[in-house]
Amino acid sequence: MKGLFITFEGTEGSGKTTIINNLKEELESKGYDVITTREPGGGKIAEQIRDVLLNVDNTKMDKITEALLYAASRRQHLAEVVVPNLQQGKIVLCDRYLDSSLVYQGYARGIGFEKVYEINQFATEGIMPDLTIYIDVYPSVGFKRINENHRNQNRLDLETRSFHKLVYEGYQKLIQKFPKRIKVVDGEKPLLEVCEQVNNIIFSYLEKNYVF
Amino acid sequence: MKGLFITFEGTEGSGKTTIINNLKEELESKGYDVITTREPGGGKIAEQIRDVLLNVDNTKMDKITEALLYAASRRQHLAEVVVPNLQQGKIVLCDRYLDSSLVYQGYARGIGFEKVYEINQFATEGIMPDLTIYIDVYPSVGFKRINENHRNQNRLDLETRSFHKLVYEGYQKLIQKFPKRIKVVDGEKPLLEVCEQVNNIIFSYLEKNYVF
Repeated sequence: MKGLFITFEGTEGSGKTTIINNLKEELESKGYDVITTREPGGGKIAEQIRDVLLNVDNTKMDKITEALLYAASRRQHLAEVVVPNLQQGKIVLCDRYLDSSLVYQGYARGIGFEKVYEINQFATEGIMPDLTIYIDVYPSVGFKRINENHRNQNRLDLETRSFHKLVYEGYQKLIQKFPKRIKVVDGEKPLLEVCEQVNNIIFSYLEKNYVF
Repeated sequence: MKGLFITFEGTEGSGKTTIINNLKEELESKGYDVITTREPGGGKIAEQIRDVLLNVDNTKMDKITEALLYAASRRQHLAEVVVPNLQQGKIVLCDRYLDSSLVYQGYARGIGFEKVYEINQFATEGIMPDLTIYIDVYPSVGFKRINENHRNQNRLDLETRSFHKLVYEGYQKLIQKFPKRIKVVDGEKPLLEVCEQVNNIIFSYLEKNYVF
C-alpha cells in the first residue's frame, strides 16, 4: 500500500487527541494528505461495537468477550477506513491500534500477550503500523488531567487505579518487544514540547520513507 | 459441570424454535430442570452484540468482523448464561452454538473451518455441547416456511440463495466431522414426527448419561 500508517498509544489522559490534531495541521500545512481516525470505532459498524465496549452499564463484560470485540472493531475499521485510505496513498493517523489490545487485554486483564496477538493476527491479517508513537504519561498524571478537563467517563475510566498501573506496566514491556517500530515520547513535558517532539519524529521518518 | 448442554443446529426455517419449545415442555413434564436460550444473544451484553450482527443496515460488515462478533457474543452468553446454569445442574437447550460459526463463517463465507474453530477455541476455552441435534431441512423448504409464517427478516435472511445452499453443504460436511456428537433428524417430515424423533433421542441420551 502506498500510504503510511501511524498509530498512537498511551494511557488514559496522555494527550493523544491533542497531539494527533496538532500533527495533522502541521502535515497538511506541508501539503500532505492526512486522515485522523480512532479505535475502537471509526465507521458505522465499528462505532456500534464501540458503543457496546464503552457503555458504562456493561460492567459484566467478560475479558475474553472484550478482547474479541476490540478485534472485531479493529477489523471493521481496518477494512472500511484504514486500508482504503492507505491505498489512496494517504497518511493515516490512528488513535490506538493492536498494541492497545496487547496491553489492556493481554497484559492488564491477564489473558496473555500471545493469545491476544493471535486473535489479532486473525483480525488484521498481519497489517501492522509503519510507525507507532507511545506517549509516556504515568496514570496518576493522566487522571489528574482528565479530572481537570471534565472529560466524559467511559467504562474503562471506571477501572481501578491498580488496573491502570498494570496498563502502564504493560506498555513498558511492549516497547521493549518492538523497539524499532515504537518511538517513545515523554508526555509529561509541557504540551507544546511534546507536540514538537512528535512532529520531529514524524517529519524525520517521512523524509526517509515516504514519497508523495 | 453437572448439567447437560444440548445445542440445535440447522438452516433458516428448519423449525428449531418450535422443536426446542416442545422438548422443553416434555422434559419439564418429566421433572427435569430446563432452560432454553439462543445464539447470538441471551444476556444483556450478548443481545447488544446480536443487534449489531443482525441489523439489516449493516450490509458492509466484513466476514472476519462477523466471525469475531459471533465469537464475542458466544463467549459472553457462555459466561453469563450457559455455564452458570450447567453448574446448577440444569439442562441447557441452546438454539445455535459454535457449529453455526463453523458452517456460516468458516464454510459459507470461505474463511475456513480451521481458522474459525481456532478463534472459537479462544472464545469458549474448549466448552463443547454434550449433544447436538441437527435438523436437516433443505434451504428452499425452509424459506417457503419463513415466507408462509411472515417471520421478520434479519441481515442473514437477505443473503442470496446460493449462500444458503453453501450453508446447507457446510452442515453436511460438519456432521461427517463430528458423527458421535451430532445427531441428524429429518426436519422435512411433519412437525409432530420431527418433535417426537428429537424427544426420543434426548430421552434415550438422558437415560444413559444424566442423573438428576
